[in-house]
Amino acid sequence: MDFSAFLTSMITSFVIFVVLLVLFPWLSRRPGNKVVYYPNRILRGVDPFEGGNRTSRNPFAWIREALSSSEQDVVAVSGVDTAVYFVFLSTVLGILVLSGIVLLPILLPVAVTDKTPIASSDTTSNGTFSDLDKLSMGNVAEKSSRLWVFLIATYWVSIVAYYLLWKAYKHVLALRVAALILPEVRAEHFAVLVRDIPPAPEGQIMKEQVDSYFKSIYPDAFYRSMIVTNNKEVNKIYKELEGYKKKLVRAEKIYGESKTTGKPEGVRPTNKTGFLGLIGEKVDSIEYYSEKISELTPKLEAEQIATLRDKQQAAALVFFTNRVTAASAAQSLHATMPDKWIVMDAPEPRQIIWTNLAIKFFQRQIRQYVIYIIVALTIFFYMIPITFVSAFTTLENLKKYLPFLKSIVDIATIRTLLEAYLPQIVLLVFLALLPKLLLFLSKLEGIPSQSHIERAASGKYFYFTSLNVFIGVTVGGTLFATFKKIEKDPNSLLTILATSLPDNATFFLTFVALRSFIGYGLELSRIVPLIIFHLKRKYLCKTEAEVKEAWYPGDPRYATRVPGDLLIVTITLCYSVIAPLIIPFGVVYFGLGWLILRNQALKVYVPSYESYGRMWPHIHLRILASLVLYQLTMLAYFGTKKFYYAPLLLPLVISSLIFAYVCNKKFYRSFCCPALEVASHELKETLDMERIFRAYVPPSLCSEKVEDDRIEDALSRV
Amino acid sequence: MDFSAFLTSMITSFVIFVVLLVLFPWLSRRPGNKVVYYPNRILRGVDPFEGGNRTSRNPFAWIREALSSSEQDVVAVSGVDTAVYFVFLSTVLGILVLSGIVLLPILLPVAVTDKTPIASSDTTSNGTFSDLDKLSMGNVAEKSSRLWVFLIATYWVSIVAYYLLWKAYKHVLALRVAALILPEVRAEHFAVLVRDIPPAPEGQIMKEQVDSYFKSIYPDAFYRSMIVTNNKEVNKIYKELEGYKKKLVRAEKIYGESKTTGKPEGVRPTNKTGFLGLIGEKVDSIEYYSEKISELTPKLEAEQIATLRDKQQAAALVFFTNRVTAASAAQSLHATMPDKWIVMDAPEPRQIIWTNLAIKFFQRQIRQYVIYIIVALTIFFYMIPITFVSAFTTLENLKKYLPFLKSIVDIATIRTLLEAYLPQIVLLVFLALLPKLLLFLSKLEGIPSQSHIERAASGKYFYFTSLNVFIGVTVGGTLFATFKKIEKDPNSLLTILATSLPDNATFFLTFVALRSFIGYGLELSRIVPLIIFHLKRKYLCKTEAEVKEAWYPGDPRYATRVPGDLLIVTITLCYSVIAPLIIPFGVVYFGLGWLILRNQALKVYVPSYESYGRMWPHIHLRILASLVLYQLTMLAYFGTKKFYYAPLLLPLVISSLIFAYVCNKKFYRSFCCPALEVASHELKETLDMERIFRAYVPPSLCSEKVEDDRIEDALSRV
Repeated sequence: MDFSAFLTSMITSFVIFVVLLVLFPWLSRRPGNKVVYYPNRILRGVDPFEGGNRTSRNPFAWIREALSSSEQDVVAVSGVDTAVYFVFLSTVLGILVLSGIVLLPILLPVAVTDKTPIASSDTTSNGTFSDLDKLSMGNVAEKSSRLWVFLIATYWVSIVAYYLLWKAYKHVLALRVAALILPEVRAEHFAVLVRDIPPAPEGQIMKEQVDSYFKSIYPDAFYRSMIVTNNKEVNKIYKELEGYKKKLVRAEKIYGESKTTGKPEGVRPTNKTGFLGLIGEKVDSIEYYSEKISELTPKLEAEQIATLRDKQQAAALVFFTNRVTAASAAQSLHATMPDKWIVMDAPEPRQIIWTNLAIKFFQRQIRQYVIYIIVALTIFFYMIPITFVSAFTTLENLKKYLPFLKSIVDIATIRTLLEAYLPQIVLLVFLALLPKLLLFLSKLEGIPSQSHIERAASGKYFYFTSLNVFIGVTVGGTLFATFKKIEKDPNSLLTILATSLPDNATFFLTFVALRSFIGYGLELSRIVPLIIFHLKRKYLCKTEAEVKEAWYPGDPRYATRVPGDLLIVTITLCYSVIAPLIIPFGVVYFGLGWLILRNQALKVYVPSYESYGRMWPHIHLRILASLVLYQLTMLAYFGTKKFYYAPLLLPLVISSLIFAYVCNKKFYRSFCCPALEVASHELKETLDMERIFRAYVPPSLCSEKVEDDRIEDALSRV
Repeated sequence: MDFSAFLTSMITSFVIFVVLLVLFPWLSRRPGNKVVYYPNRILRGVDPFEGGNRTSRNPFAWIREALSSSEQDVVAVSGVDTAVYFVFLSTVLGILVLSGIVLLPILLPVAVTDKTPIASSDTTSNGTFSDLDKLSMGNVAEKSSRLWVFLIATYWVSIVAYYLLWKAYKHVLALRVAALILPEVRAEHFAVLVRDIPPAPEGQIMKEQVDSYFKSIYPDAFYRSMIVTNNKEVNKIYKELEGYKKKLVRAEKIYGESKTTGKPEGVRPTNKTGFLGLIGEKVDSIEYYSEKISELTPKLEAEQIATLRDKQQAAALVFFTNRVTAASAAQSLHATMPDKWIVMDAPEPRQIIWTNLAIKFFQRQIRQYVIYIIVALTIFFYMIPITFVSAFTTLENLKKYLPFLKSIVDIATIRTLLEAYLPQIVLLVFLALLPKLLLFLSKLEGIPSQSHIERAASGKYFYFTSLNVFIGVTVGGTLFATFKKIEKDPNSLLTILATSLPDNATFFLTFVALRSFIGYGLELSRIVPLIIFHLKRKYLCKTEAEVKEAWYPGDPRYATRVPGDLLIVTITLCYSVIAPLIIPFGVVYFGLGWLILRNQALKVYVPSYESYGRMWPHIHLRILASLVLYQLTMLAYFGTKKFYYAPLLLPLVISSLIFAYVCNKKFYRSFCCPALEVASHELKETLDMERIFRAYVPPSLCSEKVEDDRIEDALSRV
């Protein structure tokens, strides 16, 4: 990629960003769009244009609002998880800013003024060697004493990272504790999840067994238990019933609207009963749905009772009358056989994965390892398409391997455009395919809570992006050139990675810029959700509920957001010394990210769970993994520069490992289990244990007031 | 070593064994020796010759007694740890017997009837090739289809091991639970050890801080706390005082005895006050010691109060009024900073290591790793002497490198004796040097209990013996021959080990026989303690207390016993298929061991602690490690036999790892922490919390009745 292609890419993406930035205040001020731009506020019952009149003239008011919001605001509006995400963004921003302040004014002059002729081995394709490369470490001669400066720079970046990561871990722990210490009653703090309950002895039902077991251990604190049932059937009926209810409301609305026109009697809506409403008998919708509802309601009730009585599974939720007992029970071994009566802290009611609760201990272990193998295979075989993508990034290769494209590619405009965008767009689309699969696989592991599933998927996604995008593109980009080398010595991956890095610097500069400008431009302006919402509202939605569903913002999807950001962390860290020019791009990415997501967190997204920052240790560990990868590639790169003092970087790698170990020992356990000193704090409210218990009854088992008594009956009976 | 040397060694050690076996009943029946042969019974207040008159004529009555004793007897007399040790012995015995029954009748004929001429590479020194080798796998030709039989035998041994180890783990867990569930009050079940207490806030003393911290978390169950103090000074004074008291008793006894003779006024004993009683002023002993005692007593009291008040450290014992709270507290995270307020289960009062309690969290971590490095270096550099030992095992080498010995060595008798004993004796002496060092190093790690220290030392000792004795001797024995090979490819250790095994079979046969006959012969006959006791009684002991000290049997020293046995396990397993003749030797070792130690457990040793079988998971893991080493060497050995189906052993290695993982997950946690369902069982006695608290006061801080009030005062005040 030559310099003009690079510039074209930069300028176009920046222009798009500016357009979106200008569009945003204009679009967001239109009252019809407020549900797209302020859904969080609307759902909280707050005026969307809070202080809006005063600032409506100023199109950049949102920036001031975002900057002036405190961490406490974020915690209050969007929870600890979101606040922790901002700690992550600001920590990385801090690392990059502190690195950049020192590295840019020192390394760029040192590199650019090196007069020694460049060895041809430093660049595999002389044709694409551009002016940008003069600003990088590749421009420094082998064995040059100028390399000392780069070595010290490598240390500087690492030390800054240690310092800020340490501060961040402490800060996140404080955030977590502050949130957990609050004197508000939360159902999950009084419950534990019990799995792997052994079969009840003869003549005793499961509930009796669970109750007597926990009553004997906790005679004072035990309140009540809830046996987990197999809700598949009841959920199906409940869903069907709810579907018909929605359809009925919709049909009535259509009927009502048809009345207002010329015909006062209206047109009664009809539908076909067969497959997808396309075939079968034509019936009157309102009558048909009403009939279906009155048919299903008693069926649901019967199924609810049958489920509670006959479909009990080997898992239960146990409720205690105080937080300390629940917290300490979740950490203690209960049975002499450690694979029985496994007790863990209960997930929030809203994020519990009911279908996973009854999976047996060793089956969970097996599932976990099988999934790991599948993910490893996925990561490994996704390399193949990536290699192709990388091959196409150099047009030279394109012309060589697909000669019929030569005439098209030689047209200057197309050539520039292709060089600038094609590879990045292919990569971005490609990355969008995976998260769903990883979430699905993580769920199969048997994890009991949504937040844990997202953490697991996020971890897998990080390895995917690091291995495939970063290493794959870097090595793959020169794979054709270095194929022979790899074949000769498969252990030389690190050296190959190191030598390939400089060649791919401009690719990743463009990649980071594209992610910053286009990615965050789209994020802020919400063009896509806006268009979808308006289309849906116009052609599909009839009822209030349907409209709300159309604009409901969903949660911030940290499972994909965090690994995406971590990929940028990996890229910027690994390039920080080799091509310091990447640092400003990283700063722009994380700075813009912080600003725009602050806006979105305050006004748009509604988190679907709260895990009190349990994501942080994963993020921390993966930043450190990036740091170690950076240190190792630097070690290898100094090696290829034939710098005799390269082994001086080894202590840095070791200190990273020690740092990870110390952080893990010092903080991690507090993120796994609730500390008793926190749980022992007094509560503000008086305790309504019945309400806590009710919070965990799934909606399909307690939907309406009328049924409550009968289910109450069933719950007590079992 | 040729066949006659082997036979000489066997016969002499067997003869010694028979002599000791005959000596034992004769010695043990003499009344003056009963304190050496029945100390355990005497200390329990049981008649040493329980049913002795009836069986005194029969010199092998002890065998019947040992065989008829039940596991419950062992638990009652010697505790769960000893019972677990017998489970270990009988499990290994079972593995060897079941393996031997199948392997001996099948493998020996298959090996000996192979007519193919032996490739010269199978034996490095044709001169020492003996008839024994014809019974081993080395006699089977390369690529022979007879190797299939050996492959299946390899599987058989492993499957037998899995089956018996699984049963043993279950059995040990049941033993542990049965002992923990007993309704007797044990102080350690009501206490937890709290370490890393943060500095007390201004205006609060440590005890107030600890009390208020635990009172707020456990308002109902908290009883009292005891701050750990720095007892160095008070212990010194206490020890000095106790020393003078003993000396005073001794002096009075000497004075009393001198009266009975001609002089009725007696001779007042004197001593010198200087260094070791050799120099300095000569004084009247009784007066001098009485004076010292009355001088030190108030000093001790003052120091006791000063210690309790001023020498508090950042650790404490906290007492709860019920077992469930103590058990669950020991497993729970208390502080939000996981390196503060670390709570763990309290060791028994008798095995607590007071000086280690106040060591800080990260210092413990650092100490642990430093010790690991030191031990690794020790293991590594001990290789050097072992290599020399091994070099001397072949007299050919001795003659070659030390030609001046040639004339001596060539004398047939000396030659035979040297070949038979020299190397084994050197090895045994050498192995006796290490345990003290390893115990000392393990203590430095900061471990709070004696049993844990012994487990840690035992683990280190196992690695030492496996690496140095087994691998060191095997590889080292042919090190001069294979030196070039190792230098070319350092990864070939396993292949070298495999090819060297057959050459060293007779060495290890002799080694196992020596350990069985001489080792257990000495153990049973207690010749060494007997001689030492009689010498001490005659020349040193004057008072009753001194005599008791002279015969006090001490504990069974599992820290060295278990690794010693595990070395035999490693040797017999690794040779079981290659040279099945080792199996009967292993059976004799573990059979004799079981029988003789049963006798010693019931009559001699007095365990100094009870850890409820926590040694077992370590033993289990190390037996599995031996099994994996065996499977790997077999894999390599089949490889050197050019057997194409050798990779069929890989699934076996993998299944061993899976077996280890499953056992760990299924049982291990129950050995680490007390299960609450066990702790929640009712107690028989009424609870005397004050007695439980008192049990933990170190003797130097509460020695006499008179002081109690004042110390009580000090304890309450702080």
